[in-house]
Amino acid sequence: MPYVNIRITREGATPEQKAKLIEGATRLLVDVLGKNPATTVVVIDEVETDNWGVGGETVTVRRKRGQ
Amino acid sequence: MPYVNIRITREGATPEQKAKLIEGATRLLVDVLGKNPATTVVVIDEVETDNWGVGGETVTVRRKRGQ
Amino acid sequence: MPYVNIRITREGATPEQKAKLIEGATRLLVDVLGKNPATTVVVIDEVETDNWGVGGETVTVRRKRGQ
Amino acid sequence: MPYVNIRITREGATPEQKAKLIEGATRLLVDVLGKNPATTVVVIDEVETDNWGVGGETVTVRRKRGQ
Amino acid sequence: MPYVNIRITREGATPEQKAKLIEGATRLLVDVLGKNPATTVVVIDEVETDNWGVGGETVTVRRKRGQ
Amino acid sequence: MPYVNIRITREGATPEQKAKLIEGATRLLVDVLGKNPATTVVVIDEVETDNWGVGGETVTVRRKRGQ
Repeated sequence: MPYVNIRITREGATPEQKAKLIEGATRLLVDVLGKNPATTVVVIDEVETDNWGVGGETVTVRRKRGQ
Repeated sequence: MPYVNIRITREGATPEQKAKLIEGATRLLVDVLGKNPATTVVVIDEVETDNWGVGGETVTVRRKRGQ
Repeated sequence: MPYVNIRITREGATPEQKAKLIEGATRLLVDVLGKNPATTVVVIDEVETDNWGVGGETVTVRRKRGQ
Repeated sequence: MPYVNIRITREGATPEQKAKLIEGATRLLVDVLGKNPATTVVVIDEVETDNWGVGGETVTVRRKRGQ
Repeated sequence: MPYVNIRITREGATPEQKAKLIEGATRLLVDVLGKNPATTVVVIDEVETDNWGVGGETVTVRRKRGQ
Repeated sequence: MPYVNIRITREGATPEQKAKLIEGATRLLVDVLGKNPATTVVVIDEVETDNWGVGGETVTVRRKRGQ
């Protein structure tokens, strides 16, 4: 019954990619710890680049510089 | 001063229902632990069904199958 | 399949009280939103009073003042 | 490599204000604990006032009363 | 620069298993979304079975019944 | 009524340092957004180095290499 929360910037992840994250994270818990996939929950949060900071500045600013 | 975070899929919860969740979670902390309601915070996150997975697949897929 | 996270200061909540929080939070989601209790997850985090702040000071300091 | 999550109600914080929160939280970790700013992550969540409760009622209701 | 939080019950995960969770979750973000592993953070929370509920009861109670 | 969660590795932060984090984060929300400090909550989570990963490996391993 693990709970996995994946937080990424909102930059165009497709439904197919998000389904792969959910499938992959669930399989990881099954493979490494033998957890029951039926009760493994994965939640993806997509966060605006204005709201995500690293190195003291927003991802919006970093993207403009090409990072 | 507890903090409660309720995460649900975004599937049409009304403002009235969300108010009931907030009222009920606050009362629960008061009743069970004697916490001060004035400083009890409840935050509800509504998550797209594409972003919520259980059993290794998205809730979007499960809903299409009627689950 | 909701996920509820209850964060409280570590100040002696008993296993019985924690079981009541889990039972009550689960029932709240069932009663208000018709969620399936079998897949409702509740996680309680107990946090040291040195690590919890409100009003800009730790709960440890507040408790010493009788708050 | 700290991770800071700032949760506020969605009530008009500007990109400039959010950039200041990110800069300030990063500097705080550097100043107090000597953390490396390059790997310090700050994520801001803006939550609808219908979804944020304090004192057992939503911020929407509190704002209508002038609180 | 994704952030992944894996929450599991504290039931004896070894350092080797936790290292595998961290490695696997990081690779997943690289493989699916092309994220930079150097800035991908994974945090594992281990939660006492008294503090984790599913189906309205604690994992402690479920384990005693053999679930 | 903001909620701030600061997650760091457990590597000897003192009560005085944690009090400074709480004070500083609270003041940041007051200064930037005019929030009420009395209802601003700051919670610090200290996480074992075995449970924190960056670059696909645990902080325990990184510290041994001198990083």
